Amino acid sequence: MCDINNTSFADCWLPRAAQARVSLSPQDTARAELADLWQNLAVAGSFDLRVEGEGEGYLLEKQAGVWRVSGGATGVLYGAHSLGFLLRGGEQPPDGFTLRSAPAFTHRIINHWDNMDGTIERGYAGRSLFFSGGGISYSEERIYHYARLLASVGVNAVAINNVNVRPDAARLITPDLLPQVAALAAIFRSCGVRLILSVSYASPVMLGDLTHADPRSGESARWWGERMNLIYSHVPDLLGVLIKADSENQPGPYQYDGCDQADGANLVAKAIAPHGGFVFWRCFVYNCKQDWRDRETDRPKAAYEAFRPIDGKFAPNVVLQVKNGPYDFQIREPVSPLLGAMPNTAQALEFQITGEYTGQQVDLCYLAPLWSDTLTFDTRLREKGRVADFAGGAVSSIAGVANTGDDSNWCGHALAAANLFAFGRLAWSPLSPPEDIAGQWCGLMFNGEARGVVQNMLLDSRRIYENYTTPLGMCWFVTPHYHYGPDPLGYEFSKWGTYHRADRRAVGIDRSPSGTGFSLQYAPPVADLYGDIDRCPEELLLFFHRAEYTRKLKSGKTLLQTLYDLHFLGAAQAEELIARWGALEGAVDAEIFANVAERLRRQAENARQWRDVFNTFFFRLSGIPDEAGRVISI
Amino acid sequence: MCDINNTSFADCWLPRAAQARVSLSPQDTARAELADLWQNLAVAGSFDLRVEGEGEGYLLEKQAGVWRVSGGATGVLYGAHSLGFLLRGGEQPPDGFTLRSAPAFTHRIINHWDNMDGTIERGYAGRSLFFSGGGISYSEERIYHYARLLASVGVNAVAINNVNVRPDAARLITPDLLPQVAALAAIFRSCGVRLILSVSYASPVMLGDLTHADPRSGESARWWGERMNLIYSHVPDLLGVLIKADSENQPGPYQYDGCDQADGANLVAKAIAPHGGFVFWRCFVYNCKQDWRDRETDRPKAAYEAFRPIDGKFAPNVVLQVKNGPYDFQIREPVSPLLGAMPNTAQALEFQITGEYTGQQVDLCYLAPLWSDTLTFDTRLREKGRVADFAGGAVSSIAGVANTGDDSNWCGHALAAANLFAFGRLAWSPLSPPEDIAGQWCGLMFNGEARGVVQNMLLDSRRIYENYTTPLGMCWFVTPHYHYGPDPLGYEFSKWGTYHRADRRAVGIDRSPSGTGFSLQYAPPVADLYGDIDRCPEELLLFFHRAEYTRKLKSGKTLLQTLYDLHFLGAAQAEELIARWGALEGAVDAEIFANVAERLRRQAENARQWRDVFNTFFFRLSGIPDEAGRVISI
Repeated sequence: MCDINNTSFADCWLPRAAQARVSLSPQDTARAELADLWQNLAVAGSFDLRVEGEGEGYLLEKQAGVWRVSGGATGVLYGAHSLGFLLRGGEQPPDGFTLRSAPAFTHRIINHWDNMDGTIERGYAGRSLFFSGGGISYSEERIYHYARLLASVGVNAVAINNVNVRPDAARLITPDLLPQVAALAAIFRSCGVRLILSVSYASPVMLGDLTHADPRSGESARWWGERMNLIYSHVPDLLGVLIKADSENQPGPYQYDGCDQADGANLVAKAIAPHGGFVFWRCFVYNCKQDWRDRETDRPKAAYEAFRPIDGKFAPNVVLQVKNGPYDFQIREPVSPLLGAMPNTAQALEFQITGEYTGQQVDLCYLAPLWSDTLTFDTRLREKGRVADFAGGAVSSIAGVANTGDDSNWCGHALAAANLFAFGRLAWSPLSPPEDIAGQWCGLMFNGEARGVVQNMLLDSRRIYENYTTPLGMCWFVTPHYHYGPDPLGYEFSKWGTYHRADRRAVGIDRSPSGTGFSLQYAPPVADLYGDIDRCPEELLLFFHRAEYTRKLKSGKTLLQTLYDLHFLGAAQAEELIARWGALEGAVDAEIFANVAERLRRQAENARQWRDVFNTFFFRLSGIPDEAGRVISI
Repeated sequence: MCDINNTSFADCWLPRAAQARVSLSPQDTARAELADLWQNLAVAGSFDLRVEGEGEGYLLEKQAGVWRVSGGATGVLYGAHSLGFLLRGGEQPPDGFTLRSAPAFTHRIINHWDNMDGTIERGYAGRSLFFSGGGISYSEERIYHYARLLASVGVNAVAINNVNVRPDAARLITPDLLPQVAALAAIFRSCGVRLILSVSYASPVMLGDLTHADPRSGESARWWGERMNLIYSHVPDLLGVLIKADSENQPGPYQYDGCDQADGANLVAKAIAPHGGFVFWRCFVYNCKQDWRDRETDRPKAAYEAFRPIDGKFAPNVVLQVKNGPYDFQIREPVSPLLGAMPNTAQALEFQITGEYTGQQVDLCYLAPLWSDTLTFDTRLREKGRVADFAGGAVSSIAGVANTGDDSNWCGHALAAANLFAFGRLAWSPLSPPEDIAGQWCGLMFNGEARGVVQNMLLDSRRIYENYTTPLGMCWFVTPHYHYGPDPLGYEFSKWGTYHRADRRAVGIDRSPSGTGFSLQYAPPVADLYGDIDRCPEELLLFFHRAEYTRKLKSGKTLLQTLYDLHFLGAAQAEELIARWGALEGAVDAEIFANVAERLRRQAENARQWRDVFNTFFFRLSGIPDEAGRVISI
């Protein structure tokens, strides 16, 4: 557990509040935030808080020197933070200023993959804020500050435990631990954040009450009904439960003959409905025991095949949680064809804020551009068919896998906090340009020239990381299990369905209609584009097609030369980041400076390893040297 | 901790004794063993035990129906077991039979890599017999049976804890834990087995007494002197300490400017000398942070370069422990050039009984043939220069890394017990043919036709495993960290110094004089042989040379076709093992049958994966199809 007294808030965008105000309602918290703001910034004039109506939207107005924040109970809290960002960012709006804002996604959720032993699956920022030693254990003050941080960017729900539910975490929904869950919920509630619990589909079995989890059984229905009554007697405003079923060895309804995902989800949904709760049901369902020799099965097709045909079968309070891409949080994937493709079922869009495949908070990788690519992607499924156009409707919700832990700076890498910030901003306002979000965050974090320098570093970082790792949609070239650093064949002969099949002449999987046909899961205009090797966007070329090394790209360069060039470029860019940051010594907080400098050194080393391993691998296979005659280790 | 009451001894070569006789001396244990034998086997005539003289040798004689066992105190124990093997193996020697025997190696040692938390590094047979939960914890009865098992094959020392000494294990040499170590020593003592403790070179630092471990410092010398006094006050017959220094991130004397391995070893040796103890000092010293781009550094050269030049600098009670090969327990390596090459320093030959790289007690792999290759290897360093010829002299000792744990059958795979048995036999009698040892073990374990069937399975198993994994001395093609199953490039770009550098035309490292020169570390006739690609034994071809895929081998086949063929063959052989074993259903103990059958199925699956991954990797690189037109997955 973090010692709050040793926690520096230097690299959080929100100044530390005077105290934790756990027992307050969101509207009282809003008032206290504004009072703090006035006191700390010595803002001219006064403020007026007006709670009226429902919903989470707010209205900011400045008239005769008075700032008025109006909205529903949580709306005014978001408004208060919005005003705080405005003023602390250095803006001085004149009288008559008006800002009306409301969130696009209904549920804006952080998913923690925290285990009861305090470890965090794919966590790179210390240990869990919630758990240690097999139990619930936290600093009330730190949790309050975390809730504030989330609320400041509009997050309104948090799943506290890992979707891979081990037996110790199954106990979270028992009388042993529910009182402590309730106490945690109370802290978050003061900031308008509702809890979600990850539960196992086989909870009745795990907890020893039933010998099966058959979704058709009356026993199962009774168990879940009684269990939900118990849970809600402790946490009356629980937003719902999050379930990873039939996925990567987790139990699920497929274990019962003739049952599909809807049978499983609806079982739990029916039990939670009387309490107003939701079942967030993940769509990350695929065969994780594939034979790599099998060239028919194609993992990116799996989620669509499992869920699309049963659109309409799900209860109204089931929300299907879909990862942004059809694979798994790679640095460049197409948007999942399942998003928006189930008009009769609620969906949640799932992003990964933590850097599992994107540098693990060692390498700088600002993810808003990747997320924005998803949100602005036009599915062509209807007239207004961008993913963002579905927000609050068919795609009611958005979830991000947390990148936070008990590290004093929350995210390990000080600049990785920009990703948490950006997630919240995009969940609220999915068409916000990533550069604006980066600019706003830098405005809150830095002064003077540092603002622009860091903003540009952030905006360049995703492409830099892509350049030296797996550009052109290649995916999966990483060290198995750890997912940091390259291992060209680490996944090539595995059961995970993740292959590039590079040989002497070509690389990639043909997913066009003449191949596995994955491209056909998209609406026709998109399917036509992706399915045609000559028209497919080059940044996704190797996702959709198998291409020869000597194939000419639009630049006139060959595919292989392009891959070589991008790797030489990316590693050089990573090296340059050190100098770009180094120029800020003295201009940014010393602790942040040292933290980032140390990580940029490791990133440059990682980029060099990627460059040389990637290029060597393809040189050994192809026998084709670099046209520029640069050294490729052999 | 194992529950002794639930432990089946069905698959141990030694029947369970009536009781643990912890407080007996070795000679009384011998008498009790013979009494058990007479009672259980209803042996005709009587026995006579005569303790006389010193040493570990024994004399067995049968005269007028009386079996006489004579020798020193432990000699008679070995004699009693020898007689037991004879009689239980079904032999009925006539009057006049005489057998005189004495061990070749002075110290015959089992090295446990057991951690205080109960895990075993590279252990595949359950958890530690000695430790759990951070402390010493064992079943007195089970340890007694284990000591008996070791004594029955002549093992006379056991290092109980991992050479990678973590802070909790450093506490073994403190007053907290020494009384418990002493109690454990007493059990082993009853069977003539002496304890060794693995200690960190930096023990004074780890235990918080000193801020450094400088070998030249008077403080260090005093610390070790006092510590040895303490240790020996608890365990007066401790054989010594085992130290892994300057190896794979363990601390060592290299950390102190100008110090070499002798400085470190002698520091501890001087402190332990007054107690008659030894320092077993491992020679597994190499740069484990190599840059794979560096083609000058060659890991197999490292141990010789670190130790050979300082022959003569070591105290007489230092024993340098040298792995059998210059790499690390691969299925086929040349013998380490360091063995026998330090005439003025005592050495121990280290084998690995546990199957880290040899199938992990899933795949059948009887290791006596590999060990016998080492022991019969003629170093040409002197007239009688086989490694076995140095036994008890320059190579005073032999150590084997344990394959035992708290699994009810000791070794996980029932047939893996043959390796523990064979290690003991070869330590006693290093020129014993592996087939005789297998025959003896099968004679004790099985009846009727099963004896011959299993003996042949054992004898074929090493070559089968080699065929489908890394034949021709290729080494390192395994999944990093786990070391089970193939990952063609898993170590290719790592820091571990283990590369094959396969490209479109060739594979292997040139270690001849025109390459890294490793071959020159051998005596001239051997160096000439290994250094010449045309004369080098083909089973080591890819260890010493880089060879083109199209190179013709002695068979007339190309290198690549040979590699393909061996993999098709090996996988087919692994599949055949299932049928060979299956024919014994009903003829062997049901528990053993099921245990082995289950593992053979997993082995066949592993062999298939190796075959296809290996062949696919080289086909993709070379573009050369199999001449026989068999399917290579692509």
